[in-house]
Amino acid sequence: MQPGDRVRVERGDVTNEGVLLPSTTRDHLVVKLDGGYNVGVDRDEVDDGADAGGGEASEITFDDDLPTVSLISTGGTIASTVDYRTGAVTAQFDAEDVLRAVPDLAGRANYRGRVVANILSENMEPSIWRELAEAVAEEVAAGADGVVVMHGTDTMQYSASALSFMLDSPVPVVFTGSQRSADRPSSDNVMNAVCAVEAAKADHAETLVCMHASPSDDACALHRGTRVRKNHTSRRDAFETVGARSLGVIDYEAAAEAGAEGDAADAAIEWNREPLPRGSEASEGDGDAEAGLAPDLDGDVELAKFTPGMDPAAWDYLDGKDGVVIEGTGLGHVHTDLVPRIAELVEDGTVVAMTSQCLDGRVCDRVYDTGRDLLDAGVVEAGDTLPGTAKVKLMWALANLSDPAEAMARDLAGELTEESQPWR
Amino acid sequence: MQPGDRVRVERGDVTNEGVLLPSTTRDHLVVKLDGGYNVGVDRDEVDDGADAGGGEASEITFDDDLPTVSLISTGGTIASTVDYRTGAVTAQFDAEDVLRAVPDLAGRANYRGRVVANILSENMEPSIWRELAEAVAEEVAAGADGVVVMHGTDTMQYSASALSFMLDSPVPVVFTGSQRSADRPSSDNVMNAVCAVEAAKADHAETLVCMHASPSDDACALHRGTRVRKNHTSRRDAFETVGARSLGVIDYEAAAEAGAEGDAADAAIEWNREPLPRGSEASEGDGDAEAGLAPDLDGDVELAKFTPGMDPAAWDYLDGKDGVVIEGTGLGHVHTDLVPRIAELVEDGTVVAMTSQCLDGRVCDRVYDTGRDLLDAGVVEAGDTLPGTAKVKLMWALANLSDPAEAMARDLAGELTEESQPWR
Repeated sequence: MQPGDRVRVERGDVTNEGVLLPSTTRDHLVVKLDGGYNVGVDRDEVDDGADAGGGEASEITFDDDLPTVSLISTGGTIASTVDYRTGAVTAQFDAEDVLRAVPDLAGRANYRGRVVANILSENMEPSIWRELAEAVAEEVAAGADGVVVMHGTDTMQYSASALSFMLDSPVPVVFTGSQRSADRPSSDNVMNAVCAVEAAKADHAETLVCMHASPSDDACALHRGTRVRKNHTSRRDAFETVGARSLGVIDYEAAAEAGAEGDAADAAIEWNREPLPRGSEASEGDGDAEAGLAPDLDGDVELAKFTPGMDPAAWDYLDGKDGVVIEGTGLGHVHTDLVPRIAELVEDGTVVAMTSQCLDGRVCDRVYDTGRDLLDAGVVEAGDTLPGTAKVKLMWALANLSDPAEAMARDLAGELTEESQPWR
Repeated sequence: MQPGDRVRVERGDVTNEGVLLPSTTRDHLVVKLDGGYNVGVDRDEVDDGADAGGGEASEITFDDDLPTVSLISTGGTIASTVDYRTGAVTAQFDAEDVLRAVPDLAGRANYRGRVVANILSENMEPSIWRELAEAVAEEVAAGADGVVVMHGTDTMQYSASALSFMLDSPVPVVFTGSQRSADRPSSDNVMNAVCAVEAAKADHAETLVCMHASPSDDACALHRGTRVRKNHTSRRDAFETVGARSLGVIDYEAAAEAGAEGDAADAAIEWNREPLPRGSEASEGDGDAEAGLAPDLDGDVELAKFTPGMDPAAWDYLDGKDGVVIEGTGLGHVHTDLVPRIAELVEDGTVVAMTSQCLDGRVCDRVYDTGRDLLDAGVVEAGDTLPGTAKVKLMWALANLSDPAEAMARDLAGELTEESQPWR
């Protein structure tokens, strides 16, 4: 058999045909089925009874009891390749590349592959968040038991936040990526991908980020999409839940073994809090869960960071914006000279929400003079919402809610801790 | 004796007169000497042989072996009071208020008090950084064995960075403040102030931030001024050294006891690395150390944070700036659409330095396409310099160095780790 050959795949009673893809290893094969599924199988399980070529498909037999996981790719390092011309890593891959790059995924699920974007994640845009949310909803409607979104790590937290607000998914939506490209000995792509697939098969309905929990290759942390942050430029365990423990941890070895034997990996997950149950959010009672979808965003929102010595005129560009999230100091402050400017913004109809560049802890503008002046000016306190998450939330709230300002002060998708512990 | 009485203070052979200040406790007295010093003493050590009043000074006798510590106040919570009209905390105090608010400081040093500003720290400005640096240099020239800067916590990291670049001090310059005002049972003002004074008396010449090391009242951490960050809005141990261990830790009980007995608190400090030695930086060899002072700053520098979905026109205000520090994603990236804009800035003479909103870890623009494009555009990598520190550094470098762009890529004051460990 050669890449490009047509092969026949038998799944229980169903037979599909597809195209054999190039594989990076001698042990695994990847087949792109005509129906859109991609399957990876061990080469030694293949019965290539007939000689390949001439339109005669080979036969690949595999277990039909596996769940279906949709692999949605947006680009990023997890399956990117080194451009040997420049020496730089480029993000050019689709879901098949993932299966080729991570043969350990074979046998864990029936995969549906889908490419929503093929970008380095610093080029992520709201229009792609919309396409991504719609793609997830379509995959759920098509029967996916879980969705894995392959995403560059730079902006993963913003995209995970966006989908957290846009979607009410009855199945897991698991973002994963890679801090080190596959050509590096220290690459994290295999463990992250395997853990993400197993987390997507598990019994919950969280939208989360699944990345290395420690510098070791022993477990991935499961972070709520609205509370996660990339806190290091290069470490494999760069992603952290801010202000709380992660949702949970998935043990790599236990999850990989269970999944390879066709079992659910739930026993490999240690939850730190009760996860949202499967199907509870948007199921219609007819057994076929559908994802609630509200993908509209208001693009006219900016995140403005205050620093000492900044020229107040630097914020002239905020005039007329629909929404502004301020990254203030401490409990949520800016220079007194900026308060009248902010008051004018609010008067002109801009929703202005306050967050803190401290990142951890909640804003509280009742304590100091400046804060009280800001409240008088009409600023909304975003509690302990992370600044980047608050920006995405405001984009969503302006497009979907009748009172977006009020919404910035309460929890919509796990981004804001309602109980106040300001002086712990 | 009553507040306002003139009192006579005998220090060994020297006798000074001053005015007794109101004290918050029955156990301690504070005297403002005519020469500008403030002294706090235990009331039971006072020999008020003569009746007070009528111009007859009382006598306060104390040990002359104490070092001199300058207390420079800029405002902030550490000795601020609650405005009972509004319920908010206001920052109106001077050094005498500190001694009144923290009677535990009595007997640890001869204090010189000085008010440089009286502001909430969100109103800190480069012109005040200049005055602060000049004040520290004057205090050192006047014989201070150490300087404590009382500062609001919101922007303490920016000010500590500014003084780190502006000054080569032969004595410790210790920033401290308070996360909880003195009227709260959980106030951290006493421990922070005592530890700061003892750290200022100790044998080193670091410019550092001294704040609670943990939620307990057991120790303060000593953070290098250029590597410290307020990482929580309200916790008393909000300040952390990013990307490294702190310079050291000072044990509260041990330092307080040693200082109260007239001993140096060096044994109470556990250094994690060798501190700069006293007098080494700028002593002229004549025994009288002077602080090197380069207080000029270029105010035409902005910190610009990139977020997905931002309007590229938001960065129009950067045109013509002398310097721009970008807070990019991951290893130091922005949306591809912004690269030509950045190239134009550099062509027009703006120094553009890249940092990461990850905060921890170093930027490295050689790995991905976008980063290489940014390097081609003339962006300077600021290593692992914190974004806020990088802004202050660029303000200083533009005003003081012939090649400020080159300086952004190397260490000047402990802000940048030269050794690269990008893939640890």
